[in-house]
Amino acid sequence: MTETEKLSGIAASDGVGIAKSYLLVDPDLAFPYNQTITDVDAEQARLDRALDASKSDLEKIKNKAEETLGKEEAEVFEAHITMLSDPELVSAIKGQINDKKINAESALKNVTDNYIATFEAMTDNAYMQERAADVRDIAKRVTSHLLGVELPNPALIDDDVIVVAHDLTPSDTAQLDPKFVKGIVTDLGGRTAHASIMARSLEIPAVVGTGNAIAEIANHINLIVDGDAGQVLISPNEDEEVAYAKKVGEYFARKREQAQLRDERTASADGVHFDISANIGSPKDLDAVVASGAEGIGLFRTEFLFIDSDHLPTEDEQFESYKAALQALKGKPVTVRTMDIGGDKQLSYWKLPKEANPFLGYRAIRISLKQDNIFRTQLRALLRASVYGDLWIMFPMIATLQEFRAAKKIYEEERSKLIEAGTKISDHIKLGIMVEIPASAVLADKFAKEVDFFSIGTNDLIQYTMAADRGNDSVSYLYQPYNPSILRLVHNVIDAAHHEGKFVAMCGEMAGDPIAVPILAGLGLDEFSMSASSVLPTRSLIKHLKVSDLKTLAKSALDQDSNQQVIDLVKASTK
Amino acid sequence: MTETEKLSGIAASDGVGIAKSYLLVDPDLAFPYNQTITDVDAEQARLDRALDASKSDLEKIKNKAEETLGKEEAEVFEAHITMLSDPELVSAIKGQINDKKINAESALKNVTDNYIATFEAMTDNAYMQERAADVRDIAKRVTSHLLGVELPNPALIDDDVIVVAHDLTPSDTAQLDPKFVKGIVTDLGGRTAHASIMARSLEIPAVVGTGNAIAEIANHINLIVDGDAGQVLISPNEDEEVAYAKKVGEYFARKREQAQLRDERTASADGVHFDISANIGSPKDLDAVVASGAEGIGLFRTEFLFIDSDHLPTEDEQFESYKAALQALKGKPVTVRTMDIGGDKQLSYWKLPKEANPFLGYRAIRISLKQDNIFRTQLRALLRASVYGDLWIMFPMIATLQEFRAAKKIYEEERSKLIEAGTKISDHIKLGIMVEIPASAVLADKFAKEVDFFSIGTNDLIQYTMAADRGNDSVSYLYQPYNPSILRLVHNVIDAAHHEGKFVAMCGEMAGDPIAVPILAGLGLDEFSMSASSVLPTRSLIKHLKVSDLKTLAKSALDQDSNQQVIDLVKASTK
Repeated sequence: MTETEKLSGIAASDGVGIAKSYLLVDPDLAFPYNQTITDVDAEQARLDRALDASKSDLEKIKNKAEETLGKEEAEVFEAHITMLSDPELVSAIKGQINDKKINAESALKNVTDNYIATFEAMTDNAYMQERAADVRDIAKRVTSHLLGVELPNPALIDDDVIVVAHDLTPSDTAQLDPKFVKGIVTDLGGRTAHASIMARSLEIPAVVGTGNAIAEIANHINLIVDGDAGQVLISPNEDEEVAYAKKVGEYFARKREQAQLRDERTASADGVHFDISANIGSPKDLDAVVASGAEGIGLFRTEFLFIDSDHLPTEDEQFESYKAALQALKGKPVTVRTMDIGGDKQLSYWKLPKEANPFLGYRAIRISLKQDNIFRTQLRALLRASVYGDLWIMFPMIATLQEFRAAKKIYEEERSKLIEAGTKISDHIKLGIMVEIPASAVLADKFAKEVDFFSIGTNDLIQYTMAADRGNDSVSYLYQPYNPSILRLVHNVIDAAHHEGKFVAMCGEMAGDPIAVPILAGLGLDEFSMSASSVLPTRSLIKHLKVSDLKTLAKSALDQDSNQQVIDLVKASTK
Repeated sequence: MTETEKLSGIAASDGVGIAKSYLLVDPDLAFPYNQTITDVDAEQARLDRALDASKSDLEKIKNKAEETLGKEEAEVFEAHITMLSDPELVSAIKGQINDKKINAESALKNVTDNYIATFEAMTDNAYMQERAADVRDIAKRVTSHLLGVELPNPALIDDDVIVVAHDLTPSDTAQLDPKFVKGIVTDLGGRTAHASIMARSLEIPAVVGTGNAIAEIANHINLIVDGDAGQVLISPNEDEEVAYAKKVGEYFARKREQAQLRDERTASADGVHFDISANIGSPKDLDAVVASGAEGIGLFRTEFLFIDSDHLPTEDEQFESYKAALQALKGKPVTVRTMDIGGDKQLSYWKLPKEANPFLGYRAIRISLKQDNIFRTQLRALLRASVYGDLWIMFPMIATLQEFRAAKKIYEEERSKLIEAGTKISDHIKLGIMVEIPASAVLADKFAKEVDFFSIGTNDLIQYTMAADRGNDSVSYLYQPYNPSILRLVHNVIDAAHHEGKFVAMCGEMAGDPIAVPILAGLGLDEFSMSASSVLPTRSLIKHLKVSDLKTLAKSALDQDSNQQVIDLVKASTK
């Protein structure tokens, strides 16, 4: 019996998926350019058929998108259909077939290239630039029909598949129906890539960063994705299928077991309590949080209220969002982070200056303190909502004590004004900071005297401490959550907080990472905030660990040389 | 008597300068566009006169540039003269005057705009992009002569002046003759801006970041620049001129006193020895280093060998540079940093990928380890040069121990190969790392067991620790060298090194900063490396301080809340 071919990658989302491969790759669309034809009518008819087939594709995609994503998201496909029906475009292509006696593919290319060049030349018009992308999209689709080649239509997947791609963009994943996607395999990416975060949040097993999945995996063949081990089995044999089907069964059994922890408090085997909370981006995520049995919201990323809007959200709009979260959590703590725009998060309606290094630039609290009218609006909305639950407010990207004091002063001013105006406000709002800049982690003892709580934001803390952009593939090997330098900074923050009797949470990806959780629990972290889907697995993990052992483990982790040594240490001591 | 108007800014380079203002600002070059003219001949003659006057300017500038900067730097002006004499260009402009009956300014604009647009459209051709800039330059010059308006010609300054500018670019400063520039005042910039570094290295008093110098200061009026106090006096009265002339005298007296320290070793008042070394970019800087009496070279920035070349420097070219430095220093230590390109340092002949955040990207050792042929060439050149003096080699941007080990392995491989081939190599080369990433500062105890020495690179260490791009004005308030978080990291590095008996240098701007030096000496830093012009002032400063006092000062600095508190503390305790 021949050995089954296997690919190794990064275990990005756990569970096991078994299904046929679905390659999300552009096929070869090469054709003989400006080939002479003789039968103009036949060629024009071939074009018509391709146009019709394309429109029919797009109708299906549009309907599907309306169903799963909503009317607004589906509009782009309606625009594509309209373009394909544009008599001016069609007659220009047919004209070229007739005048130049060339094949339809070439006529299509000549005409659409011309459109694209015209749109793209309008460099100061973002709308026209997007139209260029639209024309490129429709040209690709019509060409594929002319060549009789299948274009991947992720939106039309209606059977169980494992999606195999070089990389998954946000717009790719937006088209996927999680009901049918049993696994994800990509060439690129790490645990914090977009595809990985999506996969974990949708509970789809995923292996990323395999390097060569696209080259090794044919379309429509049997695959097993082992999201626990970071392995992909290509055309597995029967024994393997049986064994992994058993693993799938165990996975669902584990899920059922975890589900029983939903209403329990999180505690270790030796009875130490921790808070497991969930991260949200908007009130849309509240159902999942409540269903997960989280002990609170550890991070409400309010910038999405700004990004998913075409205007600065008003005080009332924000108030409704915060109120909804506080009410849904029924008195459990809700930690709201004030606006963290800038860096890689830009607004369509308010352009920030272009910067050479946006991650080291004008963002988050730096904007809030300088353009404080936006900040004040948000604080007023939060203060007014505070009576509906247990509100914790935290400021992002705090580097110096002066920034925290300035932010707190503005908060106090708005609070006083509202109280004077007779508005009811909770009297136990907590005020804290994100610790995500090395400076504040190092100076945590000073901050701990003045804040009510810390929340460690590991995604940024890692990228600044390692001086490595987490979105840059060339330096992704330096994005090391378990590097002892990171663990030491986390340790410093926890100790400094506890010395002053303050609370420490963590709300980066690391807080739900099974390698990190035992160390963090050993260091005494109070709250772990993560995607809703990780809440129960983490509660279950902690239930099986003894804090007395973890303290020894954590101490040893701080004294390792490298990220990999820490991984090995945790694996050896928790298996 | 009316109060003299004063501007406050950042004291960027010490000393006092007294001279007339010279505004380095583009004048108003507005003209009536497409104005109808009647006398075509007269208009064409007006154009000819402006072209001749422009060529005459450029001849003078070219000759001056050849004299002060060298033939190569002057070539750009020769190219401008050639363009102005191009019959095609001239006849196109005259043609427009004749055909359209428009004024010469408009004809010039129409024709040159066309050239510029054509060149700029070649977006993938850097050479043509630069030609667009050239056309823009000559059009500006000819327009100024048509309008009878004076364009600033910094290269032609031949009398004592104080240069006043919004900002100074590298190309502006390249044209200035330090003999005549008695002071610099700018609207923008901080202590680490290009203009400030240039000013300190040329020993020109400078006040930067005044915000409104251009608006407040007229051309050709009396100015006093007080680079110690960060003040500019506009049209000072006689008393002030006398008082400041006295200060100038004291400044030169201080210089003379410092000059006597040239051949002394650096030591504190209570006899503790420190090394004061100099930073260099190329062998051109060696004379200044030797003249400064530096105790070694603490930083040889080899990337300038790569940047100032049109090809990757060969092993022999590099060998000659390293040999020159080692020979000039006559056995004093020469610390060479291996290639630190990437980030804001790009090569014309080898394009690195565009990155969203280059400071957090693929640069320095990250490139050397991946594209190790370039690294191996450099190491071979260094190894071969090692017999000419006391060579220390350090690797930039080390974040993990694995990176240091990988770099050391490559070094050992090249060393073995050379020894096998019979090449003579020093047997006491030291191998160290730049500590400029928070991760390595935090993990210094681990690194200290494996390296021979550390050199703390504060420019980068500050920008990563504070998460603030040092070139970004919006966040320049966060570039805080004395922030206690920075001082604590420096302290950690020094203690970790000394615990293992290793040597610690510092080669960032901070090492020559009079506020930082007392703290660093108190923390036990072994070597301070700075621009050659700061060597003697720093030696003199240390001579007047007692290390026993500085230890107390340093301990207190580590426990302050803020950058400002540390400044106040040092000022109070060392005055």
